[in-house]
Amino acid sequence: MIDISVEEPVARSGAFSAANTYEQVYPGVWRVRILQPEEVTPVSTRSFGADEDGLSSLPHVDVCPVRVEYRRTSRGIEVRHQLDDSESIYGLGLQLRNFRLNGRKVHLRVNADPQNDSGDSHAPVPFYASTGGYGVLVDTARYGTVYVGSAARRSEHSPRSMSGGASVGTDSLPVAYTRDSAIGSEVLTEVPHAGGVDVYIFAGPNIREAVQRYNLFAGGGAHPPRWGLGFWYRTATDFTQEDVTRQATELRARGIPCDVIGIEPGWQSAAYSCSYGWSDRFPHPERMVDDLAQLGMRVNLWEHGFVHRSATIHDELLPLSGDFRVWDGLVPDFVESRAQEVFASAHVPLVDAGIAGFKLDECDNSDFTGGWSFPELSSFPSGADGEQMHSLFGIRYQDATLKAFAASGEDTYGLTRNSHALAAPYPFVLYSDLYDHAEFIHAIAQSSFSGLLWAPEVRHATDSVDLIRRLQTAVFSPIAMVNAWYLAQPPWIHTDTTANLAGERAADAEEIEEVCRQLIRLRMRFVPYLDAAFADYRRTGLPPFRALVLDHPDDIETHTISDEFMVGADILVAPMTAQQTERSVYLPHGRWRDFWTGELLTGGTRLVVSPSISQIPVFVKDGAVIPLAVAVMSTDEIDEIEWVHFGDAPPR
Amino acid sequence: MIDISVEEPVARSGAFSAANTYEQVYPGVWRVRILQPEEVTPVSTRSFGADEDGLSSLPHVDVCPVRVEYRRTSRGIEVRHQLDDSESIYGLGLQLRNFRLNGRKVHLRVNADPQNDSGDSHAPVPFYASTGGYGVLVDTARYGTVYVGSAARRSEHSPRSMSGGASVGTDSLPVAYTRDSAIGSEVLTEVPHAGGVDVYIFAGPNIREAVQRYNLFAGGGAHPPRWGLGFWYRTATDFTQEDVTRQATELRARGIPCDVIGIEPGWQSAAYSCSYGWSDRFPHPERMVDDLAQLGMRVNLWEHGFVHRSATIHDELLPLSGDFRVWDGLVPDFVESRAQEVFASAHVPLVDAGIAGFKLDECDNSDFTGGWSFPELSSFPSGADGEQMHSLFGIRYQDATLKAFAASGEDTYGLTRNSHALAAPYPFVLYSDLYDHAEFIHAIAQSSFSGLLWAPEVRHATDSVDLIRRLQTAVFSPIAMVNAWYLAQPPWIHTDTTANLAGERAADAEEIEEVCRQLIRLRMRFVPYLDAAFADYRRTGLPPFRALVLDHPDDIETHTISDEFMVGADILVAPMTAQQTERSVYLPHGRWRDFWTGELLTGGTRLVVSPSISQIPVFVKDGAVIPLAVAVMSTDEIDEIEWVHFGDAPPR
Repeated sequence: MIDISVEEPVARSGAFSAANTYEQVYPGVWRVRILQPEEVTPVSTRSFGADEDGLSSLPHVDVCPVRVEYRRTSRGIEVRHQLDDSESIYGLGLQLRNFRLNGRKVHLRVNADPQNDSGDSHAPVPFYASTGGYGVLVDTARYGTVYVGSAARRSEHSPRSMSGGASVGTDSLPVAYTRDSAIGSEVLTEVPHAGGVDVYIFAGPNIREAVQRYNLFAGGGAHPPRWGLGFWYRTATDFTQEDVTRQATELRARGIPCDVIGIEPGWQSAAYSCSYGWSDRFPHPERMVDDLAQLGMRVNLWEHGFVHRSATIHDELLPLSGDFRVWDGLVPDFVESRAQEVFASAHVPLVDAGIAGFKLDECDNSDFTGGWSFPELSSFPSGADGEQMHSLFGIRYQDATLKAFAASGEDTYGLTRNSHALAAPYPFVLYSDLYDHAEFIHAIAQSSFSGLLWAPEVRHATDSVDLIRRLQTAVFSPIAMVNAWYLAQPPWIHTDTTANLAGERAADAEEIEEVCRQLIRLRMRFVPYLDAAFADYRRTGLPPFRALVLDHPDDIETHTISDEFMVGADILVAPMTAQQTERSVYLPHGRWRDFWTGELLTGGTRLVVSPSISQIPVFVKDGAVIPLAVAVMSTDEIDEIEWVHFGDAPPR
Repeated sequence: MIDISVEEPVARSGAFSAANTYEQVYPGVWRVRILQPEEVTPVSTRSFGADEDGLSSLPHVDVCPVRVEYRRTSRGIEVRHQLDDSESIYGLGLQLRNFRLNGRKVHLRVNADPQNDSGDSHAPVPFYASTGGYGVLVDTARYGTVYVGSAARRSEHSPRSMSGGASVGTDSLPVAYTRDSAIGSEVLTEVPHAGGVDVYIFAGPNIREAVQRYNLFAGGGAHPPRWGLGFWYRTATDFTQEDVTRQATELRARGIPCDVIGIEPGWQSAAYSCSYGWSDRFPHPERMVDDLAQLGMRVNLWEHGFVHRSATIHDELLPLSGDFRVWDGLVPDFVESRAQEVFASAHVPLVDAGIAGFKLDECDNSDFTGGWSFPELSSFPSGADGEQMHSLFGIRYQDATLKAFAASGEDTYGLTRNSHALAAPYPFVLYSDLYDHAEFIHAIAQSSFSGLLWAPEVRHATDSVDLIRRLQTAVFSPIAMVNAWYLAQPPWIHTDTTANLAGERAADAEEIEEVCRQLIRLRMRFVPYLDAAFADYRRTGLPPFRALVLDHPDDIETHTISDEFMVGADILVAPMTAQQTERSVYLPHGRWRDFWTGELLTGGTRLVVSPSISQIPVFVKDGAVIPLAVAVMSTDEIDEIEWVHFGDAPPR
């Protein structure tokens, strides 16, 4: 990393140059090479190849839709292209606090606690897509900054007013006191420290195909094993093996479907940093795995990537790790495939023993929350520095985990708190310690622009309404999960954490449990439909959960909607939060059916719904035929599928 | 700025070199020059010279107390020095969410909405001080990152445990599950993009003298005019000239002392960006200034630094501004003295008309809150890029403002939302749109390490208790101010914003107003004492408001106290928040007196106080003689001073 030779001193100049090396690397995908790109990038360290067949079956586009200019400075590389007034821009990874990016500055820094709308993210991704019908990937692992029409050059003499420009704080002021929100007419990205960069352009014709092309370039979407689409329940961190088995048995006895039991830090002999070995509170883990298998349940284990001195792989990893420690553990150089392999070798015995997946915690630069992480100035044997490693740490950690499963030929589906570019093929779902329900709904839609999946997990709740509304959102998400890691009982027994931990039952526990049971069974009904949506994701790159604008870029109303989303081909979901007794739902143009009543609804307009607490607003395209499972306790049992035809229109 | 030639390619190497150019530039102040420093730095662009007399009168120290090592990489410059277990480190500018910095990573980025504990700040300052008896200024305008013993090198084989290491979330877990918080034994600073840097070391012998030396190196502390120490009241942004005069008259009629009336954006003909000219709602501003002067009140005007096309100076500033616009206004190159002068020229007529000061708003990189600011990649004629300009924008803007007052020989005291290194001599006080009362108290103590002053301004309140407790804190702060910019009436008439705007009076308005009136009169009593404390600041660099650890570095209990602070030589204040009905107060070793009762208290221990709502806990050193004014309506009227001797000890 400490290579400080600069090959070509560049003359002092403020001028941008037009890039002129456009190479069509796949159908509709152009690589624009600018000067000398860095060695460690998302593309250069990728494990999945592009899905050429998938790319070939998208609409043919002849001409690269974007022309790029660049400038090299002492700070790094700047790239820019024109932004038209009519375009809306989306993406740049998981952005909990923004959606349509026009007018925003986004700093792509990995951060475990992204409370500011600054671009800081669990999963920053230097890819964005436009309703202009293209996508752009700046192939860098740097903390880039993207100005989406948010910077107006002094030379732009006709300021364009930005919609939504805030007034000064009172409506009674004359126009002269309102903020003159002139905005720029370019998307401008600064890549620090780099002497060059590759920019990939993805053609449409529409934003939907641009995103599909990006995901297919990444290797196509993930298609998780069917059990991954069932219900997940994570147990308390201080549970023993006996506690875990008891909890699983109890779920089954209470008629609550479950496919995956998650076990939190307490399973390891050392957790901060990790030993990847069982603690003596789990004396017979293989027996536990067998016991759970009898119940149709698989096991997912919590861990992070920092390797404890007592781990079997510690000494072998020592020369394959960074020059700083985290929690006194090694930081594996996950960019090196050799480090991935050594790391995987500690997991092969777990996979062989039947562990179905892992939760990759704390791979997202937690130093701003807890003061622990490796510095951006770290050096790794691969040549990556700490900044590049932070960007790639989560996704290359996923690679290492997949290597452990590849060894035994098993599929997996897991969780991760950090990801980056080209994530579509990875069977890992993002989550966060932030816990705002409205943001969690938003993230389902917002993550769809960047090849990411999002888990709106349910933990505690302020009350039973909050619990049920959160669970409804989880039911219509990539992972339907209750994470009770700091509770002693399921949250439907008592939503109050203290009472829950004390073993108390709320007065209405039976009633709340029944609502939750029915919701979880609803999830089980949808497994075949979700399975089909993920199969499409694999094959076509179309996100199974996605923002409305992807399907309806010409409908301007959809451009700012992130509290509704499409699921698969035919279903639109508009979750409620506990604060809402009614909500507005926008249905895009076309004929729709209310999922619950079958009522015919005409799209292109807003309606107000006020469903009962047990119902989540779900709408189906008129004429759709939806495959629903007959309710079962685990996906292994799915046998019978009911094909439900919605409406009078001929089956689609 | 776009100079990309790199003079000396440096060989690939991970090794640090010992710096060997230590020059004692002033008594007890060493400059360590590392390679080739950048041209635009806090020191290179300073307006105030060091106070050599002040520096000479501090204790003599012969040997530079810190040895620095450095490394140049492709990312920039790293500097480091040893950190001992016994040291506590403080500073790095205004840090609302941390105090003792050991174990922390601090990223010195200017940010108007610093919600994360990341180092983001209204006023990041690359200076820190240690109880080891030294201070360090890294002379850079870059967004540096400082690892205060928070990064452990892989080679450190004996991890040191960090106090306060968090457990996994449950106390019932074995030790192996708790976080192994090994920390490093160095303070490590990374300066991005730079090829070299000057590091200044300030000797003690104690932390207090190190901070004094830093402030005297900056030019000595600010000593505001006495009127600045009276009470400030900012009026609603939509007030007309008539409204402002009416409000001032009413304050006087109600017996509420006031020295400064603040006027918010509505005074200008264009505010976003700024014209610096009166709007037609202020048809006779000179008459208003006269009217207020009759009441003993001065006028402070809101503005920001972005220059509207209609401003008289716009065209002259055009070639002296950056290459991006903000709110369609020019961004002056405040690093250039010529730009400062042109900017000042628009303010000279205002100063000549009697305006006493300005509030420099939105100079703190608001793009992460509103999407408006200039990019870090901007270029300025001075050679500064946007990152350097963001760091220096506030303090060089203060320079420009001072030039307007220098022209007429007037003193000023104002507000700013951004500052940086070497700020001590500047008569400007920081404020924030964040509004947590506990954080506001903390900031009074925390800002004292970095040559900064902090205004815990009072706006609305959740209730009358909250209002009174907030006002008590303001009374013992550098500026005692109510900022009613979004209220129609003083907050003591109604704390609820909606009711206040509707002109309603709370049922207990008379009673609450009386408590507030007495508090404001208390502030007036303390003006002579505060004046003396600021005179000391000017002469000795000792902060008038400061953390306890500065006076008591050997008392480990003080190392983590930021909810109490010293005022001047003899007074300790421990404000209450509305959430508290009682609080713990630590009195350092020695004999103390309760300000209100005169009761003798022995230091070196904690006591619990539960004062009535009208009292704030204040303690005086036994034997101190405190000069208090006989209560007056404005500081101009101060004539008689009462010297109050606390306790039986001989007067000190």
